[in-house]
Amino acid sequence: MKMKQFKYYWEDFNAGERQQLGSFSLSKEEIIEFAAKYDPQPFHLDDEAAKDSLFGGLVASGWHTCCMTMRLMVDSYLGEAASLGAPGLDELRWLRPVRPDTKLTAHRVCLETRPSKSRADVGLVKHRFEVVDEAGELVMTMVGMGMFRRRQPAQAS
Amino acid sequence: MKMKQFKYYWEDFNAGERQQLGSFSLSKEEIIEFAAKYDPQPFHLDDEAAKDSLFGGLVASGWHTCCMTMRLMVDSYLGEAASLGAPGLDELRWLRPVRPDTKLTAHRVCLETRPSKSRADVGLVKHRFEVVDEAGELVMTMVGMGMFRRRQPAQAS
Repeated sequence: MKMKQFKYYWEDFNAGERQQLGSFSLSKEEIIEFAAKYDPQPFHLDDEAAKDSLFGGLVASGWHTCCMTMRLMVDSYLGEAASLGAPGLDELRWLRPVRPDTKLTAHRVCLETRPSKSRADVGLVKHRFEVVDEAGELVMTMVGMGMFRRRQPAQAS
Repeated sequence: MKMKQFKYYWEDFNAGERQQLGSFSLSKEEIIEFAAKYDPQPFHLDDEAAKDSLFGGLVASGWHTCCMTMRLMVDSYLGEAASLGAPGLDELRWLRPVRPDTKLTAHRVCLETRPSKSRADVGLVKHRFEVVDEAGELVMTMVGMGMFRRRQPAQAS
């Protein structure tokens, strides 16, 4: 069986590097459509109800921002990486409300890389993902470990 | 201005309580539709490509499971609660792959409640959310703090 070739393997990630992953914005209609399916709270669904909420107006579900950031991750590097998935997140912070038509930009910051202890052909990469608004203010952060195949398996020592 | 009345306030949450929030399953079509928008990796998109992946078949995006669990939270208690939102999650774990048409059931476990230090009318509730399959095996867990209005503001001491 021929192994599929990827552009990025574990060895291609380096602690300290920072990559801009791209930008997105959410229209009022998109915010409402997502919320109606997954997070139907009044401040995500309805302009008028949102005015009386703590947000003072319609804001996107935090999960919507997560999902759009995931999409940027796949489009910018993960889709071309020998990824073995992720066990989850160590931290997720929704820091500022996301209002309609706000341009948000996501960044990947590589915090740490290390070989897997149990699998010679696998390495781990710890990332912080940062989503900022046009003023550069942090809107969301996520920290988590991902697993990637290695180009070269670790040598037994 | 008349304050809206809610069914659940901060005082209604108690450490140790456990609530079943409901169940859902994801069809192959739903898994693919979600992934095409937010997480277009081959093992979430295509049966054939997924067979060659580490999962050995099509699996749902972990974000899809998050979003469906959020929906159950809103439908079962959060939609009737004096919620002030959540700053994020302290931990998210995707423990088992979610395959099409698997019935998943979510539970809320209240870990801790405490008054806000800065706002007399607000209290904090720490929850663990557990999603299990039909065999009772954990598929996903999320731990995070939520903010709720109090029925009675704290007395100055």
